Amino acid sequence: MRKESLYIVKIGGNIIDDDTKLLSFLKSFAAIDDNKILVHGGGKLATQLAVKLGIEQTMIDGRRITDAETLKVVTMVYAGFINKNIVATLQANGCNAIGLTGADGNAMLAHKRNHPTIDYGFAGDVDAINSDLLSELLKKNISIVFAPITHDKKGLLLNTNADTIAQELAKGLSGDYAVTLIYSFEKSGVLLDANDDSTVIKEINPVSYIHLKTEQKIFAGMIPKLDNAFTALNSGVNKVIIGKAENLAELISGSSGTTIINE
Amino acid sequence: MRKESLYIVKIGGNIIDDDTKLLSFLKSFAAIDDNKILVHGGGKLATQLAVKLGIEQTMIDGRRITDAETLKVVTMVYAGFINKNIVATLQANGCNAIGLTGADGNAMLAHKRNHPTIDYGFAGDVDAINSDLLSELLKKNISIVFAPITHDKKGLLLNTNADTIAQELAKGLSGDYAVTLIYSFEKSGVLLDANDDSTVIKEINPVSYIHLKTEQKIFAGMIPKLDNAFTALNSGVNKVIIGKAENLAELISGSSGTTIINE
Repeated sequence: MRKESLYIVKIGGNIIDDDTKLLSFLKSFAAIDDNKILVHGGGKLATQLAVKLGIEQTMIDGRRITDAETLKVVTMVYAGFINKNIVATLQANGCNAIGLTGADGNAMLAHKRNHPTIDYGFAGDVDAINSDLLSELLKKNISIVFAPITHDKKGLLLNTNADTIAQELAKGLSGDYAVTLIYSFEKSGVLLDANDDSTVIKEINPVSYIHLKTEQKIFAGMIPKLDNAFTALNSGVNKVIIGKAENLAELISGSSGTTIINE
Repeated sequence: MRKESLYIVKIGGNIIDDDTKLLSFLKSFAAIDDNKILVHGGGKLATQLAVKLGIEQTMIDGRRITDAETLKVVTMVYAGFINKNIVATLQANGCNAIGLTGADGNAMLAHKRNHPTIDYGFAGDVDAINSDLLSELLKKNISIVFAPITHDKKGLLLNTNADTIAQELAKGLSGDYAVTLIYSFEKSGVLLDANDDSTVIKEINPVSYIHLKTEQKIFAGMIPKLDNAFTALNSGVNKVIIGKAENLAELISGSSGTTIINE
């Protein structure tokens, strides 16, 4: 039996922080006439709230350390404010959505990051997803809005990278669905010239990826994203697309963004 | 066919604000071997956060006015912090729970309160519940944790009284389930002497209620709660129990609290 399509779209802070862009994106997302999951990151709101509350933010190697007070803030902002406003906006646009964290229905199980030298605090690394629950909701024509919070089934909520959540959902649901994983960010795709949005590479496959890397033609910051994309493809995901959230319809139709394929 | 039992338990701020009491309550709730829904109120946390953020709280006739900034705070605190921590704690205690607001899966639809003289701001009055979704989740042995936030399907989230949410859920699900609605608060039940917790009235029915009222034997503050209880019973709810959250197991077994019945 042919698998049904499932789009998993990750949006980052640049969209979440911009009400007009977010609304326009959500209208496009609501219009996708297929199974779909939206994974959202945090944006500046959590940092702003932490600053207002006088909670000091510790960064190590560019990564935020989630101490107990910061966990409280991200739980409020990600799982509360952002997640529920996205769900309400989707409902207003005719898309029956449900907001989840990893704790809800045990949707995504993680463990507190165990690093030999750095204590990341309440940061979660993903162990498993509950694909049964997610499939059931999708079958009922409910779209899922996932906040970047997981749990350890021992009572702890954990702050978890939204890119990782999107990837884990894509991998975990690829047995049941033909999954297209869309990473949206501020650029129009993977660029040959990081400062020129017209230099989008249309398609990257394993062979061209090696060339691009050896010839140092892609921005170093993109390498982890692309490595993750190939990991997802190797785990059964059909297609990964990287591009601008504002162009969601075009990303899906293939007329915008960079498509990463495994052949 | 005999209907399955469903317990709908509303907990108030006095439990939510006390970590030890809350944990003990959640263990008892997790242990209920039946369909169950937990409805939580807000507690002091939202007020504390609003004060910290310098958001002025306007009260009219003892009711808080939900302006835009206050709505943001209650969405963060109720739907984010409180709801997700309750869900994670239930998961840790072997109870597969899912946290919902009215926006999630369109679980509870409301409209912005329309009062002839007072503008309550973003306060919601309930219009309908989506019993299909709720029943589906219960059938999958998932317990529901409902935050006191609804939506209007036009994109607005609305602050909604938790007692009302519990009552609407009880009424709306009484077609499919034999519903016991439990209102927990700081007293052991409906008392003959408001200052003496040993004067709990074991059972109130419509006839004894009239006597209690005409003889002014019950505290005036209880009248709206009891009126609501009888409204629920008249709408198909099996039983309403009022008592202390700390005694949840005893409230269910009938050895504590006040039982309100319709015969």
